[in-house]
Amino acid sequence: MKWFARVDVSERKASKTKIKDEMERWGGRLFIAKILTNEVPPTCEPLGRYNKLIIASGLLGDTPVTTSGKISIGGKSPLTGGIKESNVGGFAGKRLANLGIRAVIIEGLPRKPGTDMLIINSKGIELVPVPELRFKLVSDTIKYLRTHFGNDIGIFCIGPAGEMLMSGAGIASPDNNDIQIRYAARGGLGALMGSKGIKAIVVDDSNSKYKPEYFDRELLTRISREIIDDLKDDPKTENRHLYGTPAIISLANKSGLLPTKNFSVGQFEYAEEISGETIRKVIAERGKEGRSGTPCVPGCFIKCSNVFPDKKGKKIVASLQYENIIMLGPNCGIGNLDDIAEMDNLCNEVGVDAIETGAALGVAMEAGLMKFGDAKNAKDMITQIGKGTVLGRVIGNGAYITGKVLGVQRVPVIKKQGVPAYDPRALKGNGVTYFTSPMGPDHTAGNAFETLKTTDPLGIEQQVENSRRLQVRAAILDSFGLCIFVRPAFVRNPEFLFQVLKGRYGWDLKIQNVLDIGMEVLKTERKFNSLAGVSEDSYSMPEFMMDEPLPPTNSRFDISLEKMKSVWDIKQEIF
Amino acid sequence: MKWFARVDVSERKASKTKIKDEMERWGGRLFIAKILTNEVPPTCEPLGRYNKLIIASGLLGDTPVTTSGKISIGGKSPLTGGIKESNVGGFAGKRLANLGIRAVIIEGLPRKPGTDMLIINSKGIELVPVPELRFKLVSDTIKYLRTHFGNDIGIFCIGPAGEMLMSGAGIASPDNNDIQIRYAARGGLGALMGSKGIKAIVVDDSNSKYKPEYFDRELLTRISREIIDDLKDDPKTENRHLYGTPAIISLANKSGLLPTKNFSVGQFEYAEEISGETIRKVIAERGKEGRSGTPCVPGCFIKCSNVFPDKKGKKIVASLQYENIIMLGPNCGIGNLDDIAEMDNLCNEVGVDAIETGAALGVAMEAGLMKFGDAKNAKDMITQIGKGTVLGRVIGNGAYITGKVLGVQRVPVIKKQGVPAYDPRALKGNGVTYFTSPMGPDHTAGNAFETLKTTDPLGIEQQVENSRRLQVRAAILDSFGLCIFVRPAFVRNPEFLFQVLKGRYGWDLKIQNVLDIGMEVLKTERKFNSLAGVSEDSYSMPEFMMDEPLPPTNSRFDISLEKMKSVWDIKQEIF
Repeated sequence: MKWFARVDVSERKASKTKIKDEMERWGGRLFIAKILTNEVPPTCEPLGRYNKLIIASGLLGDTPVTTSGKISIGGKSPLTGGIKESNVGGFAGKRLANLGIRAVIIEGLPRKPGTDMLIINSKGIELVPVPELRFKLVSDTIKYLRTHFGNDIGIFCIGPAGEMLMSGAGIASPDNNDIQIRYAARGGLGALMGSKGIKAIVVDDSNSKYKPEYFDRELLTRISREIIDDLKDDPKTENRHLYGTPAIISLANKSGLLPTKNFSVGQFEYAEEISGETIRKVIAERGKEGRSGTPCVPGCFIKCSNVFPDKKGKKIVASLQYENIIMLGPNCGIGNLDDIAEMDNLCNEVGVDAIETGAALGVAMEAGLMKFGDAKNAKDMITQIGKGTVLGRVIGNGAYITGKVLGVQRVPVIKKQGVPAYDPRALKGNGVTYFTSPMGPDHTAGNAFETLKTTDPLGIEQQVENSRRLQVRAAILDSFGLCIFVRPAFVRNPEFLFQVLKGRYGWDLKIQNVLDIGMEVLKTERKFNSLAGVSEDSYSMPEFMMDEPLPPTNSRFDISLEKMKSVWDIKQEIF
Repeated sequence: MKWFARVDVSERKASKTKIKDEMERWGGRLFIAKILTNEVPPTCEPLGRYNKLIIASGLLGDTPVTTSGKISIGGKSPLTGGIKESNVGGFAGKRLANLGIRAVIIEGLPRKPGTDMLIINSKGIELVPVPELRFKLVSDTIKYLRTHFGNDIGIFCIGPAGEMLMSGAGIASPDNNDIQIRYAARGGLGALMGSKGIKAIVVDDSNSKYKPEYFDRELLTRISREIIDDLKDDPKTENRHLYGTPAIISLANKSGLLPTKNFSVGQFEYAEEISGETIRKVIAERGKEGRSGTPCVPGCFIKCSNVFPDKKGKKIVASLQYENIIMLGPNCGIGNLDDIAEMDNLCNEVGVDAIETGAALGVAMEAGLMKFGDAKNAKDMITQIGKGTVLGRVIGNGAYITGKVLGVQRVPVIKKQGVPAYDPRALKGNGVTYFTSPMGPDHTAGNAFETLKTTDPLGIEQQVENSRRLQVRAAILDSFGLCIFVRPAFVRNPEFLFQVLKGRYGWDLKIQNVLDIGMEVLKTERKFNSLAGVSEDSYSMPEFMMDEPLPPTNSRFDISLEKMKSVWDIKQEIF
């Protein structure tokens, strides 16, 4: 990828600049961290003229390495006020890479309120007004774009939640057939896109003359194949293919870490009825549009996604994933898969993060707005987000605002962001990640679930070390543009990390240089957060998690803030 | 005052401790700053078990010095997340001092939700359940207490907004006849009191055996008299007595600094119809319960308050003040005094800060929930705060939350607190105070309105110096427990400052020692804020105030953040 693009929505102008020098090494998450730190005042208003929405492919974005179609989207978060990178599947990432564009930086504020689409193709980049798309649901938005542009384009778009600047809004990215609707969900980046007046981004790579010049095509192809061969031998890969992220529901429940009824319990009575195994069975029974083991990005070898159908075999939502199931399901006391799938689809339609929305609904239930388990009212509330009722706007702004408005004292947020579906009291390594990651509580930033069998999840030993290792690895993969599910291949063969870069770019790196990329991501992000006043020094863990024992383990979160803050001073092997 | 009290609402226990050593010098605002910094973790949840509600008389609380009945209330603010001290008139302050109690520290969280009153009398301190007061309006709450305790008690109480933990909630403090309802309004301290389960505090000083032992009664009496004599000669005092705080409306309007229609203009077409002169005239015409020139604390010599009556002469609200008039009036495009008085009374009844609520209503109007000038709907929204509807809860949480929920980008807040009724673009010294005061945007922390004639309010010269001088003076007076309106006497005669302390306590201080008290207040508060992540390093000014010119002066706020941050490094004379 040779260029990065700038779009100034105030002037309605765009430009393309060749990537050179130091910037060559900035991929995905690192690109976002660098641009934000260099160009955006840390204390600026997230929805104001100084913030920038940055879309950036990873370093491997234009390679055949499996899962390399994932793309990073970021900016100063409207939810946390700190830096946010959220990466997403779908097909737009690869198409942007096919145009030779590594990144798009969207800046300024529209002079007049309006609804634009940003068209990026081989001829150029332009903003085109589409007032007819104002406040349209995501599926209607995509349909409109398909009618005008066909299926051979990539799409990023927002729902009404993003247009209404809600802090829980995400950015959708469908596949070519609009079956998988993936989300750069966390941190309110949909509101940031909405603040720029952009409803949709169309990436049309037809007639692109860009061809990536691989330094050593043979090496790159060989390592790509070796990554797949390695993954093939890993039983986890097959498990992920068959059951996807919901594979872990039973174990999470057994471990007592499943957020249930606004994080008041760690086990859910209907956990088996919503487990990965049950989902696979139901999909197989219902057939027709239902699918297990489908990909979310072109060229993915693992194919962990599903298409969850209703009783007639018609798709409700794709993909039904662990986080969304748990936060919309058990966390709201809801144990029926169809209800959960419908709620998840409604989140996709109005354009909000299902994790944040599930956390907000749990808080609304704790406030007594409806009972735990009341799926009917929960669906109505998500629908209200899209309609922009006052209640809908409260929920659509996430758990923190919902808690403030409804006067709830037990609110599962850190740095104003909803805690994802691993209660940190029963998986303390994740508590460390939630508290210390520059992303705030985000399971993809360093998920300690994989340490469940090697580290006592209720103990305080090794949790900080585990979190650090996982955070550095995640930062590297997020800068390469790869899915976290290919990581085991790199952990087993760390040399793959510099070999793929050698094949793609010709860089002679050692493992330490690759580690330095990960550390630079974290260091740059932490610098931004510190200047924005949202470093870990300004926050605590949710007090109820430190004070209330979590049944059935009756564990409290008891790793001290000081110990967690030491995470960056530890010396340890990462690979 | 010999003791301070601790009330632990978890254990439902209270104790009294003798004040000694260093603590002897902690009055009012300094007492709050010290306790908060020493005992409350800066990153704790404001409505959680680690925060403390602190009520503290000033150093002169038990002296006859005029206005010394004002009392400070503070804690970690549910609105800003930083330190908050809010001082208030009413008669409870003096009664607490009569009991010899300088301060009450309320800590812990109730084990079960409930509604208590805290009774403080010569026999002791106890919590008594009053479930019958749950969600009662402020006037009904006071009526209930009068029925049970009569008029010879002091009262602090909250309305339903505080019980529902809204960040805009304040703490009411009436006079003996419940005519003046004064508020420790800013910073959401009503929610902090609500979180402790305390609906009302009854201060019964009957049978108190405490008699203050003045070191030099003669000196104290003489200086007290000299302060009054000095003020008598100041034409400002007479002006304040006649017109109260609304005296400045005409000049503020003429200067183009009057927040109008959500801070979009600096002048209001109906300014003369709501001016101090008009108010005095209307009160005189309507007669009966109407009053100008009444006191809010016992022993006040200035008596700047009013009682604003309806057309039949029945009190609507007391006192109708500058800030409330402007934020509920012009800032909402409302120019009718009766409407404004009714809105102000509704704020008092539900128990919210009228400044914060006026700012929130302006934001709601900008969002299109109602039109500017729509007093009927504005009143309905304040009523909804008391009823706890979702919209009411949004407004009751203040301008920041209202802006977030309704997706408004022009929100007049700094550190999440609504900007008071002096647009900083046309009175730049106040911008410096709003940005740099540990209190956030709070006009009482250092109001540069008095510099209007000596410093160009649109220029950047001297604004930082002015703000610093005013902030230090305010910090001293807030620790003495005096009203800002007696300040001119001390500015003209700085020796009064150490002479009153000598008379009361026998301390041999120099003016520098008194200045050190002010500086220690600010230093301690800034330390707390810094550790809480809400120092000025973490914030900016509202971007629209830096970008949008304010008609008619077309001034932008253009003092750089860096220049403002230098406020504490300046060397200058304070008196």
